[in-house]
Amino acid sequence: MIQKYPSALLENAVNEFAKLPGIGRKTALRLVLHSLKRTPEEVENFGQSIISLRNEINYCKVCHNICDEEVCHICSDLSRETALVCVVENIKEVMAIENTGQFHGLYHVLGGIISPMDGIGPSDLQIDSLVERAQSGEVKEIILALSSTMEGDTTNFYIYRKLSGCDVKISIIARGISIGDEIEYTDEITLGRSILNRINFSDSFKL
Amino acid sequence: MIQKYPSALLENAVNEFAKLPGIGRKTALRLVLHSLKRTPEEVENFGQSIISLRNEINYCKVCHNICDEEVCHICSDLSRETALVCVVENIKEVMAIENTGQFHGLYHVLGGIISPMDGIGPSDLQIDSLVERAQSGEVKEIILALSSTMEGDTTNFYIYRKLSGCDVKISIIARGISIGDEIEYTDEITLGRSILNRINFSDSFKL
Repeated sequence: MIQKYPSALLENAVNEFAKLPGIGRKTALRLVLHSLKRTPEEVENFGQSIISLRNEINYCKVCHNICDEEVCHICSDLSRETALVCVVENIKEVMAIENTGQFHGLYHVLGGIISPMDGIGPSDLQIDSLVERAQSGEVKEIILALSSTMEGDTTNFYIYRKLSGCDVKISIIARGISIGDEIEYTDEITLGRSILNRINFSDSFKL
Repeated sequence: MIQKYPSALLENAVNEFAKLPGIGRKTALRLVLHSLKRTPEEVENFGQSIISLRNEINYCKVCHNICDEEVCHICSDLSRETALVCVVENIKEVMAIENTGQFHGLYHVLGGIISPMDGIGPSDLQIDSLVERAQSGEVKEIILALSSTMEGDTTNFYIYRKLSGCDVKISIIARGISIGDEIEYTDEITLGRSILNRINFSDSFKL
């Protein structure tokens, strides 16, 4: 079905919105038409917010999290455990872990995971700087917190090998059944892992 | 759950995206982070497209459809039936009807429908200019193509009364069961209407 737009400006805006992930042409049109009901100032603020973000954003030179200054607010927070570094894929995961309130160390944002299908190799990721941090002597433990997928496992193993010469403990986040899950509906691989990785019952009280 | 954003620029962009209809904070974050993977030029084009649209858009002085010139491409198309005017709520409906390929007249975009709940009264809509078009003598038939809701019916009736003095035929789009609908699952009001508004079987071949 060919959509005939009554205006080239409208068509251009719809095309631009439709480039966003998960936004089809119908949704794009709805979003664009909504902006016609807003004031020019509101639309200006909207458009400029994303342009400014793209042009002015910095990446923390320590952990590669995005930030407004040279070093992010987590890396510059003196109350955090600087000997503990959690390796994550992207800044979304930093935010997710921060929201748990359970982690008080620092992060290291890889900027992706090794995925030959998408053409992402180790050199595209912040792995060398992770090795440097590990060799600096300040870090005692590195926690791998990548997705439990084939790509995540590949990346975990690659990092594990790269860090083999360093004097740091390398740990990985626990995999098991989710809190609130029913055993009956848990997939068998997760269930099998959760049995192999069982912990002392008395230890589970302490969490 | 309080989301701590690592950057004020990021937070501002997420806030702006979350103002779009149907976009929550999680989706907003996903869309904003996606833009960090695009080139600054692409993001500039995206942001400018909506700003330009808002600042430069025109409304056709005849039918109030949006357009780039003074008069839209439909109103200025000499091959269309100028005696036939289809009244619609918004430009989305113009596009939807154009896509059917079944209508070759002109449009009149009201810019909304009468909705006391939303504070929209007749004076907020392009009804006076519709009456002017009807009085001009050029229009022979006005087709009401508003949604089949209480607001749509109210607006239809209001327009019908306003046009009562004009020498134009006023018609309304057919309401009945949708093509492909099963009788069993059709709501009873629609089904009842479709029986009352039945047409000659031989006429149905012609469509």
